[in-house]
Amino acid sequence: MQAPLKIAVAGAGLVGSLLAIYLKRAGHTVHVFDRSPDIRNVNFSGRSINLALSQRGWRALDEVGLGDEIRNIAIPMDKRAIHMADNSLNYQYYGKDGESIYSLSRGGLNRKMVSLAEAEGVEFFFETRIWDVNLQTATLYTGETERGAWSELQYDMVFGADGAFSRIRHRMQRQNMFNYSQNFLNTGYKELNIPANADGTHKLDTNSFHIWPRGAFMLIAMPNVDGSFTCTLFMPFEGENSFESLKDKQTLEAFFAQHFPSTQDVIPNLVEDFFKNPTSSLVTMKCYPWVFEDKVALIGDACHAIVPFYGHGMNAGFEDITILSQMMEQYGNDWATILSEYQKSRKPNADAIAELSYRNFMEMSVDTANPDFHLRKKIEKWFSERHPDKWLPLYSRVTFSHRPYAEALAIGDRQKAIMDEVMKLDGITDNWDKPVTEQHILRLLEQDTLTT
Amino acid sequence: MQAPLKIAVAGAGLVGSLLAIYLKRAGHTVHVFDRSPDIRNVNFSGRSINLALSQRGWRALDEVGLGDEIRNIAIPMDKRAIHMADNSLNYQYYGKDGESIYSLSRGGLNRKMVSLAEAEGVEFFFETRIWDVNLQTATLYTGETERGAWSELQYDMVFGADGAFSRIRHRMQRQNMFNYSQNFLNTGYKELNIPANADGTHKLDTNSFHIWPRGAFMLIAMPNVDGSFTCTLFMPFEGENSFESLKDKQTLEAFFAQHFPSTQDVIPNLVEDFFKNPTSSLVTMKCYPWVFEDKVALIGDACHAIVPFYGHGMNAGFEDITILSQMMEQYGNDWATILSEYQKSRKPNADAIAELSYRNFMEMSVDTANPDFHLRKKIEKWFSERHPDKWLPLYSRVTFSHRPYAEALAIGDRQKAIMDEVMKLDGITDNWDKPVTEQHILRLLEQDTLTT
Repeated sequence: MQAPLKIAVAGAGLVGSLLAIYLKRAGHTVHVFDRSPDIRNVNFSGRSINLALSQRGWRALDEVGLGDEIRNIAIPMDKRAIHMADNSLNYQYYGKDGESIYSLSRGGLNRKMVSLAEAEGVEFFFETRIWDVNLQTATLYTGETERGAWSELQYDMVFGADGAFSRIRHRMQRQNMFNYSQNFLNTGYKELNIPANADGTHKLDTNSFHIWPRGAFMLIAMPNVDGSFTCTLFMPFEGENSFESLKDKQTLEAFFAQHFPSTQDVIPNLVEDFFKNPTSSLVTMKCYPWVFEDKVALIGDACHAIVPFYGHGMNAGFEDITILSQMMEQYGNDWATILSEYQKSRKPNADAIAELSYRNFMEMSVDTANPDFHLRKKIEKWFSERHPDKWLPLYSRVTFSHRPYAEALAIGDRQKAIMDEVMKLDGITDNWDKPVTEQHILRLLEQDTLTT
Repeated sequence: MQAPLKIAVAGAGLVGSLLAIYLKRAGHTVHVFDRSPDIRNVNFSGRSINLALSQRGWRALDEVGLGDEIRNIAIPMDKRAIHMADNSLNYQYYGKDGESIYSLSRGGLNRKMVSLAEAEGVEFFFETRIWDVNLQTATLYTGETERGAWSELQYDMVFGADGAFSRIRHRMQRQNMFNYSQNFLNTGYKELNIPANADGTHKLDTNSFHIWPRGAFMLIAMPNVDGSFTCTLFMPFEGENSFESLKDKQTLEAFFAQHFPSTQDVIPNLVEDFFKNPTSSLVTMKCYPWVFEDKVALIGDACHAIVPFYGHGMNAGFEDITILSQMMEQYGNDWATILSEYQKSRKPNADAIAELSYRNFMEMSVDTANPDFHLRKKIEKWFSERHPDKWLPLYSRVTFSHRPYAEALAIGDRQKAIMDEVMKLDGITDNWDKPVTEQHILRLLEQDTLTT
């Protein structure tokens, strides 16, 4: 237990709610503010991508005993189901036997998290807009409108868990020496839906992450507990095969019939959903520093918003909480050190998962449709099972381990260089699981160690 | 002449004033707003680096007949004077005979530009703070304070020439799909001063850009027409040999005696100036888009703030005006096209000069002290004089030509790769101006052309 403080958390999203629970358990008074209505009272849909909870996320939940509650509303996915353009279907397992990522609807998880936090004694203030913060005094300014009357709320500390467009960060951004970048992709996304069968079962394999990889665009589908799938179409805003080009019912239906024929029977409301749901954009946001003295700290998307292609936005945010909590253990009531060590530890890893996530669009949308890629994955899996001490595949290191993201990025790059060499071996297609290949990889690994 | 519009320019700096003259000449009503007092009535000093006007800047001034007025207050510098750590002095000429860059004090030039614009009929509104802009309607919001009462000012168009911390950009930044980055260097700067001799002459060679290159830090000095030099000390904020480490008179004087012994007689007010003048930071800011429909456009530092190490901040801003003016010629009253073509033309070049400027700190602070670097420069100069059609040195392409910055960056990189090869030639130190070297460069150039 720390000396009790009065702490405000901006943002009642996933990271804000879980952080509030951690802070409450550490002995603090915790107030959570959100500009939106209580998510438990509103319909939440139309612009979300399902979440893929993996090891890092589970650890943060299990640490405070919430994992089992969440497991009840999560569906394990142990593989990619790759729907090829010729209508054939390939499966590609994510990890070793039983290793899965878990599909969760954002709305469902967020409702549960808010209720859990409330049960702990966290106080929520919904429909309360924070417009500004005084960094020196941890004072929040709230009000109906940006230019109207504001109220002052005084705290000992403020956490900004208010997402990619954080108001807390907005104030920090105006300081000298604050580094900041936001970069939008030319690719956007739109939510679609595969409803459940009449008997409540799933129309596609339940325990798969479904991908229709088509190069510059792709469709994905992730299962929900009610038997439906949340689908997401990723494609460029402009140009050939773009959101702009799908202007009317006829063009849209022809496009889906040509590129996603296997979806025709399972997405009944394609036209209605497509034109009703918004087209959302994707941004990578980086900044530094994340904290101001012992008063204010950013966490989650507010300091490292990433694109969703590795499914690690929430996992990285939850891992922020794990690390922050470790620093609280280590440094007691010395909040200046806690916050400073927290940001130093997290920044390189946030940058690394941003890079990995950006790259993974190509893996999902292009590589998964490529036979060479499948061979690489097979070789990696085979070799890593024989030499688990020598080779942990990149995906596993990111998703099924707690090793730092920055390490995953660096080792992943070296593994890729080695696999590039391996793929040049004569007859690799036939000899992929032969001693000659094994010896070659071992030799390359040894050289690699020598030069690093 | 275009159909006359009512145009507001935010910012009465160098780019804002010159742009206002161009717009007035094109037939528009032009109002320029600045939050500061009229620069002609205030003392301007203590935190500026002198300007180095070069070809691109002169073209924009000469185009509207202002070049000669400015030449009166500018001092040509045809070379670097490199003050080595051992107190020896080397000269390195910038270009061919007579090619110079021109030293100007920012305050002096700015005062002149405002007066010239006023003489043209541009109206200035000083001490007027713009807090926001409506992009759709080109309405400016001004007032005493950000949260106080605001007035609305309605225009046909608004130009944001309001610098690296532009309020106009601040509004654009809140739009979806707006890419933005700001990155601060860990190196800061401080203004110092070498006063004139009693008879008004310069204490150091007048027509040189003086550099004391010391690796992670450096001192520079540029001449003023009153016989003084404006000096700038660049060094890290923290660590060994940093602003932080120079805490008191004694440490400061010992540091200058050790690293800049040749300055002891010429900077009499070192201690006073050092502790009185602020330590300023250096930022690279990039963004895109720069324009909103036919209503709002950013120009100069407001859309591409760069570090000062190539002396091209103002030159790049003035070239923005040249290109905008060309688009006005080409597209008449079609402002949507004028602005869109302007940003498309300028963005890659703004990115290129940002990169070149960033890299040039190393050239100035490290390379100029290196004998290999001098040999490279000698070889380049010798070869380019023999083959002016085949080799224009990077510095000359940036500073003494109107070729796009992006081309300079790309060709500069290829030239560097070639010079890396040339420097590996046996006996290059002796044979640098021999046929064997010439033939080698010609061969490398030919290979390079074949592969590009």
